[in-house]
Amino acid sequence: MTLTDDTATLPNGLTVDAARAEAARAYELDRTHVFHSWSAQAEISPMTITASEGCYIWDGDGNRLLDFSSMLVNTNIGHQHPKVVAAIADQAAKLCTVAPQHANAARSEAARLIAERTPGQLNKIFFTNGGADAVEHAVRMARLHTGRYKVLSRYRSYHGGTETAINLTGDPRRWPNDHGNAGIVHFFGPFLYRSQFHATTEAEETERALAHLHDLIRMEGPSTIAAIILESIPGTAGIMVPPPGYLAGVRALCDEYGIVYIADEVMAGFGRSGKWFAIDHFGVTPDLLTFAKGVNSGYVPLGGVAISPQIYETFAHRAYPGGLTYSGHPLATAAAVATITAMAQEGIVENAARIGSEVLGPALQELASRHRCVGEVRGTGVFWAVELVADQATREPLAPYGSSSAAMNSVIADCKKAGMLPFANYNRIHMVPPCIVTEEQVREGVAILDKALEAADAALA
Amino acid sequence: MTLTDDTATLPNGLTVDAARAEAARAYELDRTHVFHSWSAQAEISPMTITASEGCYIWDGDGNRLLDFSSMLVNTNIGHQHPKVVAAIADQAAKLCTVAPQHANAARSEAARLIAERTPGQLNKIFFTNGGADAVEHAVRMARLHTGRYKVLSRYRSYHGGTETAINLTGDPRRWPNDHGNAGIVHFFGPFLYRSQFHATTEAEETERALAHLHDLIRMEGPSTIAAIILESIPGTAGIMVPPPGYLAGVRALCDEYGIVYIADEVMAGFGRSGKWFAIDHFGVTPDLLTFAKGVNSGYVPLGGVAISPQIYETFAHRAYPGGLTYSGHPLATAAAVATITAMAQEGIVENAARIGSEVLGPALQELASRHRCVGEVRGTGVFWAVELVADQATREPLAPYGSSSAAMNSVIADCKKAGMLPFANYNRIHMVPPCIVTEEQVREGVAILDKALEAADAALA
Ligand SMILES: Cc1ncc(COP(=O)(O)O)c(C=O)c1O
Ligand SMILES: Cc1ncc(COP(=O)(O)O)c(C=O)c1O
Repeated sequence: MTLTDDTATLPNGLTVDAARAEAARAYELDRTHVFHSWSAQAEISPMTITASEGCYIWDGDGNRLLDFSSMLVNTNIGHQHPKVVAAIADQAAKLCTVAPQHANAARSEAARLIAERTPGQLNKIFFTNGGADAVEHAVRMARLHTGRYKVLSRYRSYHGGTETAINLTGDPRRWPNDHGNAGIVHFFGPFLYRSQFHATTEAEETERALAHLHDLIRMEGPSTIAAIILESIPGTAGIMVPPPGYLAGVRALCDEYGIVYIADEVMAGFGRSGKWFAIDHFGVTPDLLTFAKGVNSGYVPLGGVAISPQIYETFAHRAYPGGLTYSGHPLATAAAVATITAMAQEGIVENAARIGSEVLGPALQELASRHRCVGEVRGTGVFWAVELVADQATREPLAPYGSSSAAMNSVIADCKKAGMLPFANYNRIHMVPPCIVTEEQVREGVAILDKALEAADAALA
Repeated sequence: MTLTDDTATLPNGLTVDAARAEAARAYELDRTHVFHSWSAQAEISPMTITASEGCYIWDGDGNRLLDFSSMLVNTNIGHQHPKVVAAIADQAAKLCTVAPQHANAARSEAARLIAERTPGQLNKIFFTNGGADAVEHAVRMARLHTGRYKVLSRYRSYHGGTETAINLTGDPRRWPNDHGNAGIVHFFGPFLYRSQFHATTEAEETERALAHLHDLIRMEGPSTIAAIILESIPGTAGIMVPPPGYLAGVRALCDEYGIVYIADEVMAGFGRSGKWFAIDHFGVTPDLLTFAKGVNSGYVPLGGVAISPQIYETFAHRAYPGGLTYSGHPLATAAAVATITAMAQEGIVENAARIGSEVLGPALQELASRHRCVGEVRGTGVFWAVELVADQATREPLAPYGSSSAAMNSVIADCKKAGMLPFANYNRIHMVPPCIVTEEQVREGVAILDKALEAADAALA
């Protein structure tokens, strides 16, 4: 518990007393008027956030917490980066909003900076408001480009909350939204720790997962398949870094059958994995790449699709039938320009890579070796999953797939009580701090998790 | 042509020279890197916007234009309102981003201010990034609340660009996206000028349109229908103000058959019609109400759904299976708080009402009486359509449905050349300035349209 002194002020100038009063009012109005995502409305009591800075947030009581969630894994540049805050204020004073059919400087420059970083020739950028609509538009482009309808997506994935995006999602949150009519077929991807293919090595997992996908394509009919969408590293579903050769194999299958390869980089992109895009680890170029979150760290809602020359050509002389009021919004794209520029100038992607390989990764692996409740630790950059199990031999998860458990809830609560907010999903704790995290902050965060896992170990004993 | 003096400065402080240089660069990068909505990419040459203020925008040559488009009919409070600009800068400095599962003061207060204004007891607010995802989530809530799947929507409507939203849309932009599998059935709504029902009076149109809808419900099977979605006043499709009794009749049909009534107020809401919500003109309360655009004038991407107590109850103890990373984004909701507060304090909705009934409406009607190319003028508040025809007797549109024509393009080009940017769709010019528009600005804008229509008249003669 890192309760701030009552007379102290938070980084945004609020005194702790004022912050508490504001938080009490915010909480009361929240419970009266705000409908929350993914929740049973009467059964939640949200934490109020009153301030943030770098890798820290402050809750409604004035407690400071290490943010190892990056909110929803989006604040890659950390909270309240002064250059991004200033860019937002400047752009607001200059020009807040412009319709998508007109051009504006902030949008143009953001498109340039993004195109400069995307793999291959993905140099045309369609902007959206977030990840889900980026996925929706990517799928539409693929369908119209190929003249085919079906899209393949993996189990254990998340692609967003709108109709197509949630149906692509390979997660129980899809189920209440799935009416079997979205033209989507799911397949199993590589995940050695819970191999679907009875594999015992990474090479075997790659080979068998590709054979499975190949067979599925043949059985579904290649001529019916518009696209395969894959998170380059599945995020919410468990940060399963694909084994060597897998993504290249998917690329080859797409080439063989004229299928569009959509890389979903909404969570894995913009530094999270220790490179600008996670797919850069694998030397593969997709046909479409979706992004959001890290592109401007979520300071202003923004997402988008980077488009290959071939797919651009399809819409060079034929109207692309899609759009949205805020496509290429000046404020959102100005925040992207500032974010990308600061990340480049300050070596933030490099920091994420170094922290992952030298500090966070090794620290979590060390912790795995000591805790009976840890089944596996995996990740890269500042993108790490700690998979908790009731039994290391059977690998029975500490919470059932798609659900929670008292044991998991107590690990999460212990972390928060000790001053660290992780990202949690089912039986996993994700340690996903901002890319600017320091070695010292990592040690502090991991030490807090270490303690929380001790209690979980004890409960299993 | 209102070319600004070369040595002048734009309201944001850019000199005309600097603005021209910025615009040239923005244009070049736009053509190299930006993929635009609803367009054949190689066939467009977007106007660049460099500055804006109140009811004016400045193009890349330094020309000032009266903005009678409100961009995409979203800048209800006008451009660069100082209180909203300041609120954005303040919130950016305080707290840019918070994940949806946590509470924050800006979101709570925005929800309170919106709930205070929505009709009936629509007091729970789910925030999205824009209009399309608001519609997506409203439909999901209706489907899960009723346990039914089908949704009815009218022809001549627009509901957004994501999968469900574009399939609800009754407009040719749906066609390339329509695979007949979205669970949506379209019906004809009231539109006396082009009556589907061979009606000659408003009362007849209302009665027959309701009978048509009732029959369609009976034929489709009431027990299969989750929701009816209706723009309270269809916007992009033509600003057809529904005749007295129609929306109340729809409400009664929904009540009779247990169907959820979704009012889409994305374009018509937040002052556009001269009331806070367009449905307020008709004394009807829907079960769900979608909003976006005017809620914060599009200064930061924001949309949402206002939810009835009954539908809230469905998700009180059962998780709502939907969400998005930026639901209830602090920056977006802080802009909404400032916008709604300023609109209330400055009587902006009242101004829209007065302008509509005393100035813009009468001026356009007068113009209709003099131009052979005008078929009908209709609207309310600052929400007016001028329907152009090749022949007043046959009502043949000046551009075919779903398309454009040389005659229409020349009207639009003449308006822009003379310093007024209208919103245009097919054979219609929409005169939809910000709600803050003055009498003098309206007279100037209408005079420009008047001149442009003279050329169109002459071409028909
Ligand atoms: C891989 C991936 N794709 C898409 C999305 C959807 O993005 P949004 O929540 O901005 O709609 C997410 C969000 O977590 C994601 O992780
Ligand atoms: C009535 C209506 N609904 C929904 C939408 C979609 O909103 P957005 O473009 O923000 O997705 C629009 C946009 O014009 C609209 O006019």
